[in-house]
Amino acid sequence: MKKAKKKVNAAILVIGNEILSGRTQDLNVSFISNWLNFKCGIKVEEVRIVPDIEKIIVSNVLNLSKRFNYVFTTGGIGPTHDDITAKSISKAFKVKYEYHKEAYKILENYYGSAHFNLGRKKMAKMPARCSLILNPSSAAPGFKIKNVLCLPGVPSILKSMIENSKKFLIKGSITFSETINLYTVESNIAFEIQKIQKKFLKFIDIGSYPFFRLGKIGVSIVLRSTSKTKLKLCLLEVKRMIKKKKIIFFK
Amino acid sequence: MKKAKKKVNAAILVIGNEILSGRTQDLNVSFISNWLNFKCGIKVEEVRIVPDIEKIIVSNVLNLSKRFNYVFTTGGIGPTHDDITAKSISKAFKVKYEYHKEAYKILENYYGSAHFNLGRKKMAKMPARCSLILNPSSAAPGFKIKNVLCLPGVPSILKSMIENSKKFLIKGSITFSETINLYTVESNIAFEIQKIQKKFLKFIDIGSYPFFRLGKIGVSIVLRSTSKTKLKLCLLEVKRMIKKKKIIFFK
Repeated sequence: MKKAKKKVNAAILVIGNEILSGRTQDLNVSFISNWLNFKCGIKVEEVRIVPDIEKIIVSNVLNLSKRFNYVFTTGGIGPTHDDITAKSISKAFKVKYEYHKEAYKILENYYGSAHFNLGRKKMAKMPARCSLILNPSSAAPGFKIKNVLCLPGVPSILKSMIENSKKFLIKGSITFSETINLYTVESNIAFEIQKIQKKFLKFIDIGSYPFFRLGKIGVSIVLRSTSKTKLKLCLLEVKRMIKKKKIIFFK
Repeated sequence: MKKAKKKVNAAILVIGNEILSGRTQDLNVSFISNWLNFKCGIKVEEVRIVPDIEKIIVSNVLNLSKRFNYVFTTGGIGPTHDDITAKSISKAFKVKYEYHKEAYKILENYYGSAHFNLGRKKMAKMPARCSLILNPSSAAPGFKIKNVLCLPGVPSILKSMIENSKKFLIKGSITFSETINLYTVESNIAFEIQKIQKKFLKFIDIGSYPFFRLGKIGVSIVLRSTSKTKLKLCLLEVKRMIKKKKIIFFK
């Protein structure tokens, strides 16, 4: 993996009526986002969830592909009529939607010639000249064309394939984080946290997230930075403030 | 709730670095989407997840507000420095960002004058002339301005408030659904399902979703329609096909 000199970012395009309708809970965004940050130093800066409609997929792929270093799509690469990601992306990039020879061989081999029906063959149809992202779970590959990487929607299959997309990516800087859980409410420390955020504005991104656990209210203060040194300095400052305000840590 | 004669749609704008980074699993999209469909007949047609950056929130709010009947935002209405939804939306609609008198009173009453600090007061700052969405859990209200409804990010608080947003919405047609779980793989029925989808193209939206349960592979066939009659007809047709292909139902 080559290392980039500057920030590398990405967007995720979730394709699927079942996610939009609320029938299916998306689990891929948090997985991809964590993997991209911790394994590749790539920051996800936008996510969109769109329906299985060709012209909508086309316009969103083009929009995100222009604005971000990489676009990851999830969903819509299976054998059924509502799987239209490969066809839509072919249209977006104005290339033929055709059988990918290697993908065809992989799938024919997996199902056996006698059971290699139309639905299964469809999973070998991809944008012309794309590269495959191999699938160790269920054979049907994902693909990469330009800066767009297409993965399936089923979380367990996606997880098994993600490492195979690494070779297409340039490495950026990993964002490290420190979390402090406190026995307080956000509004009790908002002013002090803001002061610390201002002091470390250039290097640290401080987030504050209320939570309920075991019937008790707490706040997680999350510090994020690509610099471990700055992170330590900021963490000390937050801890000093907490001590001064006599707030108890949440275990 | 007034009833609309045509389709009513909505978009959801999730605001928060913690969702984008993968630290926090979003749970609000599926909840809001289900609630909007089953309680209000409103269809969510796009979701975006964006970071806590003012100009990005402004441009996304304006874009979605123009294209959809309603926009629901989640997150960023708390007391801390990273809560910038109210300020950003004021900027988007070019109105003052100021204390909302009623919200101020609610919060002052909740915290008591002695503990009504700056962070807590911040939660009463909203776009001028917005309407409140009351919060029975933790007092701090959400708000509605033009066709944009702003809710908090903490799922339990959001859930407790959602009914209070109903009065601002016009009712559309509920999408009903029928699900059939089968002991098969998608590629075994893709061709037949596509044929049925073509026949019912105008009225029914058929989705096919593979799943793994108790170590076994299955497929959910989901039929969606605003017409219960068409749904029944289509369901019969799918069941006939399944019987013919000797596929077993998944219990």
